[in-house]
Amino acid sequence: MASHSLLLLPGDGIGAEIMKEVEKVVDWFNENSDMTFDTTEGHVGGAAYDRHGQAISDEDMAKALEVDAVIFGAVGGPKWDKVPYDVRPEAGLLRLRKEMELFANLRPAICYPALADASSLKPEVVEGLDILIVRELTGGVYFGEPKEITDLGNGQKRGVDTQVYDTYEIERISKVAFELARTRNNKVTSMEKRNVMKSGVLWNEVVTETHKNGFDDVELDHMLADAGGMQLVRWPKQFDVIVTDNLFGDMLSDVAAMLTGSLGMLPSASLGAPDPVTGKRKALYEPVHGSAPDIAGTGAANPIAMIASFAMALRYSFEEVGAADKVEKAIEATLEKGLRTKDLAKDGDTVVTTAEMGEAIVAEL
Amino acid sequence: MASHSLLLLPGDGIGAEIMKEVEKVVDWFNENSDMTFDTTEGHVGGAAYDRHGQAISDEDMAKALEVDAVIFGAVGGPKWDKVPYDVRPEAGLLRLRKEMELFANLRPAICYPALADASSLKPEVVEGLDILIVRELTGGVYFGEPKEITDLGNGQKRGVDTQVYDTYEIERISKVAFELARTRNNKVTSMEKRNVMKSGVLWNEVVTETHKNGFDDVELDHMLADAGGMQLVRWPKQFDVIVTDNLFGDMLSDVAAMLTGSLGMLPSASLGAPDPVTGKRKALYEPVHGSAPDIAGTGAANPIAMIASFAMALRYSFEEVGAADKVEKAIEATLEKGLRTKDLAKDGDTVVTTAEMGEAIVAEL
Ligand SMILES: CC(C)[C@H](C(=O)O)[C@@H](O)C(=O)O
Ligand SMILES: CC(C)[C@H](C(=O)O)[C@@H](O)C(=O)O
Repeated sequence: MASHSLLLLPGDGIGAEIMKEVEKVVDWFNENSDMTFDTTEGHVGGAAYDRHGQAISDEDMAKALEVDAVIFGAVGGPKWDKVPYDVRPEAGLLRLRKEMELFANLRPAICYPALADASSLKPEVVEGLDILIVRELTGGVYFGEPKEITDLGNGQKRGVDTQVYDTYEIERISKVAFELARTRNNKVTSMEKRNVMKSGVLWNEVVTETHKNGFDDVELDHMLADAGGMQLVRWPKQFDVIVTDNLFGDMLSDVAAMLTGSLGMLPSASLGAPDPVTGKRKALYEPVHGSAPDIAGTGAANPIAMIASFAMALRYSFEEVGAADKVEKAIEATLEKGLRTKDLAKDGDTVVTTAEMGEAIVAEL
Repeated sequence: MASHSLLLLPGDGIGAEIMKEVEKVVDWFNENSDMTFDTTEGHVGGAAYDRHGQAISDEDMAKALEVDAVIFGAVGGPKWDKVPYDVRPEAGLLRLRKEMELFANLRPAICYPALADASSLKPEVVEGLDILIVRELTGGVYFGEPKEITDLGNGQKRGVDTQVYDTYEIERISKVAFELARTRNNKVTSMEKRNVMKSGVLWNEVVTETHKNGFDDVELDHMLADAGGMQLVRWPKQFDVIVTDNLFGDMLSDVAAMLTGSLGMLPSASLGAPDPVTGKRKALYEPVHGSAPDIAGTGAANPIAMIASFAMALRYSFEEVGAADKVEKAIEATLEKGLRTKDLAKDGDTVVTTAEMGEAIVAEL
């Protein structure tokens, strides 16, 4: 009987409410399957700052490094707008990504059939959409130094951030993209701004090299990132796997997520390198959406992205593909039945609360 | 009788063919109005590289600094994919922007009524859309140093780009945004990633300060750039003027352009600071679209963005608002009549060539 350890970090805003629904799914597996999950809970973001004056405590950080997977809610909110930069809510998430070395962020953008007309795009443009953005997550402008504001005197300040990529960082993320493409439609589109950025020139070069050395069975295209954003809006189905850097990945995955009209639906996985001995990857799973402080506590939050993130954990951390499929099918079945949280509802739809949606999904299991 | 000097830089790909159509419009004004335009032609991009081994010659650069306005086509193409970084086609455009100090790039995204259903978005989402992206154009990661690839030995290279913003750069671009908002719907949304970037923290701070000091009659919102990309796709009509940095502006304006379904339609203006003595601004006008080498020479190119860029020149460089309106109305009337270049055509539409479209617009004048 397989036993897995999970650290739950609900975070801020709607984080706590949607995490409760994941716990129901975890409980279901504890009671009805041959795996068990051993869960502990910690704090991150504003919730951690309010307790420890840090965006994540060293103790919780240590736990994150020990467990099989971290399940993360969301961080941030106006309450912490004025806290110092180094302890702002997002710093907790960035520290987790960096110290766990979660360099590969997988962001699927899937258009659920039942929701095709929730999109602002025409149904024929998004129906059946299933693309995967593979975003580099521990490099680039997020972590490069110098990163500072200096006072130049005479009323002038200078803000500096540094975009840095080394060969090995680009190589390992492109390998992840090629490997995942093989399990899908075998096509990778790499996006950068090589016409303006030297890191883009290197990115292009290394992806091309990596492709030649062992992945030339996969189709590879290069696209400038601005043109890529455009093409995502024009005809997203042209893509299968998109591989791109940290900042472009941030922008492009948000655009891609919105195409599906179901931001409250989209999960993500952040993975480290396989351990040389055990083969295990450190991993964190989180919804693509944010902490939505405006609706926190109202029962309007959609728990599906959070639950689907747990499904990704089953797939990528525990190799429980059957269980992952089961959760994803339960989500789909619940939607087919017409249940909608407020974000998805249109005139005439029955609106259910966060808890009702979570329970309906568990009932489908 | 006002006389204005123009430097025409057609560039590469479809640049030459669409520039020809602008010349017809210029000729029309020379013959039928009380202004005259004195035009000279130069080379930029691959076209300049093939002649001089530079992306723009010093001579043409000097001319650009002298004339009242530069009318720019497009640069780039696979032919020059392997030329050295410093003389790649885009370097010509970047040199013009930098040496002319064109810090303010105005990119309207307008949905022409006749084309509302050419968009991949639902008509109700884009109908009547009229937003303006004000992009900082001479700073940020485009020009910051270091910008280099270094060899680290042991098969590793490091690509570095530097994002830099000083107070005065953010201040002057936000002033442009606030001033333009006053002539429109009086609302500015500033976008950055202050949760990750120090330059974003400074950006946010300076825009807020500038707003307080003389522009607090304008409504100001701040949005994270990733959320901004998302909101552009979800409900673009929530925006009036968006002000953002060079790289985010590049990405967001391409997304915004594509919303309107009419990339071949969208012009842009790049402006410098007013001269302290004459009050004149250096200026360059170019379509948002690229050089489209795949369709160059086939008559499929849409000249409207190029002609609309000349209309922006009439408005911003020559204060000929009446003439600018006239050109824009001629474009609209031509579209209302059902004329469509290939990019705009749907089943059943009459497809016209680049030249036919240009002539039809001149006929409307
Ligand atoms: C919260 C923030 C730091 C984060 C990012 O920019 O990476 C978020 O936008 C995301 O996409 O996960
Ligand atoms: C051609 C390229 C250098 C340019 C840019 O990145 O600014 C283009 O994409 C644009 O948006 O004008």
